[in-house]
Amino acid sequence: MKKIILSGANGKMGHVIASFVKEKDDCEIVAGIDINTTQYDDFPIFAAPAQCNIKADCIIDFSHPSLLNSMLEYAVHTSTPIVVATTGLSSKQIALLRKTSELVPVFFSFNMSLGVNLLAELAKKAATILGHDFDIEIVEKHHNQKVDAPSGTAIMLADAINHAQSDCYEYVYDRHSKREKRSKNEIGMHSIRGGTIVGEHDVIFAGKDEVITLSHSAMSKEIFATGAVNAALYLAGKNAGLYDMGDLVRMQNVTE
Amino acid sequence: MKKIILSGANGKMGHVIASFVKEKDDCEIVAGIDINTTQYDDFPIFAAPAQCNIKADCIIDFSHPSLLNSMLEYAVHTSTPIVVATTGLSSKQIALLRKTSELVPVFFSFNMSLGVNLLAELAKKAATILGHDFDIEIVEKHHNQKVDAPSGTAIMLADAINHAQSDCYEYVYDRHSKREKRSKNEIGMHSIRGGTIVGEHDVIFAGKDEVITLSHSAMSKEIFATGAVNAALYLAGKNAGLYDMGDLVRMQNVTE
Amino acid sequence: MKKIILSGANGKMGHVIASFVKEKDDCEIVAGIDINTTQYDDFPIFAAPAQCNIKADCIIDFSHPSLLNSMLEYAVHTSTPIVVATTGLSSKQIALLRKTSELVPVFFSFNMSLGVNLLAELAKKAATILGHDFDIEIVEKHHNQKVDAPSGTAIMLADAINHAQSDCYEYVYDRHSKREKRSKNEIGMHSIRGGTIVGEHDVIFAGKDEVITLSHSAMSKEIFATGAVNAALYLAGKNAGLYDMGDLVRMQNVTE
Amino acid sequence: MKKIILSGANGKMGHVIASFVKEKDDCEIVAGIDINTTQYDDFPIFAAPAQCNIKADCIIDFSHPSLLNSMLEYAVHTSTPIVVATTGLSSKQIALLRKTSELVPVFFSFNMSLGVNLLAELAKKAATILGHDFDIEIVEKHHNQKVDAPSGTAIMLADAINHAQSDCYEYVYDRHSKREKRSKNEIGMHSIRGGTIVGEHDVIFAGKDEVITLSHSAMSKEIFATGAVNAALYLAGKNAGLYDMGDLVRMQNVTE
Repeated sequence: MKKIILSGANGKMGHVIASFVKEKDDCEIVAGIDINTTQYDDFPIFAAPAQCNIKADCIIDFSHPSLLNSMLEYAVHTSTPIVVATTGLSSKQIALLRKTSELVPVFFSFNMSLGVNLLAELAKKAATILGHDFDIEIVEKHHNQKVDAPSGTAIMLADAINHAQSDCYEYVYDRHSKREKRSKNEIGMHSIRGGTIVGEHDVIFAGKDEVITLSHSAMSKEIFATGAVNAALYLAGKNAGLYDMGDLVRMQNVTE
Repeated sequence: MKKIILSGANGKMGHVIASFVKEKDDCEIVAGIDINTTQYDDFPIFAAPAQCNIKADCIIDFSHPSLLNSMLEYAVHTSTPIVVATTGLSSKQIALLRKTSELVPVFFSFNMSLGVNLLAELAKKAATILGHDFDIEIVEKHHNQKVDAPSGTAIMLADAINHAQSDCYEYVYDRHSKREKRSKNEIGMHSIRGGTIVGEHDVIFAGKDEVITLSHSAMSKEIFATGAVNAALYLAGKNAGLYDMGDLVRMQNVTE
Repeated sequence: MKKIILSGANGKMGHVIASFVKEKDDCEIVAGIDINTTQYDDFPIFAAPAQCNIKADCIIDFSHPSLLNSMLEYAVHTSTPIVVATTGLSSKQIALLRKTSELVPVFFSFNMSLGVNLLAELAKKAATILGHDFDIEIVEKHHNQKVDAPSGTAIMLADAINHAQSDCYEYVYDRHSKREKRSKNEIGMHSIRGGTIVGEHDVIFAGKDEVITLSHSAMSKEIFATGAVNAALYLAGKNAGLYDMGDLVRMQNVTE
Repeated sequence: MKKIILSGANGKMGHVIASFVKEKDDCEIVAGIDINTTQYDDFPIFAAPAQCNIKADCIIDFSHPSLLNSMLEYAVHTSTPIVVATTGLSSKQIALLRKTSELVPVFFSFNMSLGVNLLAELAKKAATILGHDFDIEIVEKHHNQKVDAPSGTAIMLADAINHAQSDCYEYVYDRHSKREKRSKNEIGMHSIRGGTIVGEHDVIFAGKDEVITLSHSAMSKEIFATGAVNAALYLAGKNAGLYDMGDLVRMQNVTE
């Protein structure tokens, strides 16, 4: 039974993780950390890492960039692996993550969903095998309140493919404005917006008389909780180093 | 057994229609008209309408805008209904179609596929019933040699919806360039290009916690032949007037 | 501002409806009826219809078959239109609904989602227009806890198509067991089960070189709340009679 | 420029391959072998392997099981790698393939499409990574003339997943006949039949609040030609051994 410290315990994702872990029998939350110390479960919640005197196998941080630095210090001080699921980090903080990972295991991914990260791995593999005989297009669908386009996940998918192919692709967002054939080195990016769609991503490989489509559809934000807890279980007991969902996905592949 | 005169008999679509009609037992081609008079089937091919001395129940014209005027004259002269499936007509020719239709039945549609026209009817109905609680997006997929975007059919679908709703929508082609929420009066238009995809069109209605998607997928250009022949069978015996695929679709609905 | 009495106010769907109505400005809940009279909003909850002394424009009943009869009596007694969204009614109760509808407006549908009912209307229309040149298949997807297959909604869709076509179709559930070609009068029914999928329904029309697919995807049970409230707004002020979602869908069509 | 001998040169797939190779600049057909020796291109066609006196880098065999043995003999005799794309081989012939592969490189796959074989590889990887938290369902769509269900390719996909998971799954074809929840060790198999659909395969992984779908859609039988020629290019210069599309797919992966 792995013990987890939950940073950001009273945030929206904190509650989602707590209720998700409750149903599992291979791990448990032993302490929470949150400015709001209202207790809602059977574990205590501390206002700051420094006050937490409970040992754990891993920390999951779903708090706020402004609180990250003290959490990383705490991880180093107590030699506890840490899963960083907080988004919106500065490049300085990314550098700090990297430095911290020389001392303790640090897990960081742009998107905590196992499914989306698997999609990225499969898309990279497909791009490598299909090569330039297939045209790649990415379609993402999100709710009508989302202001950015394309989604961060769509960019993550395109980058994963592009980096694996020596960055030979350029991203195209609008074909309406020009009157010319598609070039081989395009990845078309399309952002559908409507209703309350949580998040769908299609990576399309269209070749001569055949099309391969790899899709991920999210129905709730709970999938990020699942991913973070899986990352924590994976990280507990690892050597110091920087890990991400891709490692988790590839590692499971190695054990085939 | 309805008799059909096939104008453009030696064109690509002419051959497709001839071989399609061969398999049917409710109609037959009795004469072809084409500058190239090479005979490939058991019906004669005349170089110009004036030379054709065979009576028919309907003409199907799949030739070229430059030949249309003489075909229309012939239709009036012989009192034969005519299906005009030739594309790229000038506005002058559209006006001529309209005038001709005061004398004989004329059938003209932007897209001859029954399926695509049905899709337009269903999309109009859905838009009317769902109203502004649902966001509308249109996604079309075509091969990588297509230079225009969005497809004419995607525009036809958007216009069908828009005209039925007092033209309240504006079309949006690129969300990448701005950072703002979707407005209620947008129809998003997305053009996927890749491989040899013949033609796919999705009309998406995304509301609160539910999404309705109406899709058409074409696997070959033969569907335009089917549509043209169905139009000919429908037109034979009708009164003078201008008809289109929408009439054919709606008419069948009336007989429910 | 239409006034609504909510029967089954403390049930799961009752709470969903109450919170949905809270966000609307064209209607409000003025009273609840439920054996559990715990108040959770600013309207009073009565243990039985007889105790409710508040007038309303419509009743929404999302309670239990055992409570329906007294609600129908109350509707007649107070001349209030009633939307019956309770499922699992006996044929005797269906007969009672019919009788009650001679005195007050009664709305009853197998599935309260506007989207699903629209799908049924569109599928009927498509089947009528496409005729026997297209093969019809229905695919539904639900979570892995669902015990019945196919879903009630899939049967509703198949029946809607079949009744509009003189009941010429038979439903086929398994092609694995026989080694023969598909017959023209089949509707194939396919039940995918997996994960936590809320509910997806595809009606596929596959013809010569073209396929039309009409799809509905539900992301939560809230869509039944939306449908019930829309039904209530539609019913308020109507003449006595039996109405269903099909009427609501068709009515909006008439106003085109 | 790799030289290819085409066995079954006058068969349907032979013609497809010949016209496909014509457009390529890294290989050419130097000789055909077929009982029908009618020449239709600039390479000679021999009635039997024994008569072919032209050296090549690889043989592609798309002929008939009855002709396979003499082709294998020829491959050994001339030390030429051979791609066997002929279907319907007996188990005795499979054994002969295996024996031949001790002397020359032999390539054999159930399905010659690169896309379908890639789909199998990706599905295996996804199943390994997602594990038993995701339910697997396979949906295939084919034309209404197909008599067998499920398709051979659907079975190939299910087997690929199943063998990679210690054969823990059983295949379920009909959920209509029983009234119980889905078990964890099911793979649901669904066969949609309609119109002229060439072939579509979806492998669905449905988990808690997320669904991953891997799809392949074929628009023509030409994709088998592409696959066979790619296999020939891959095989030329290899050591003796038995290869299949999985090797080709995995090999390209190794070079990442």
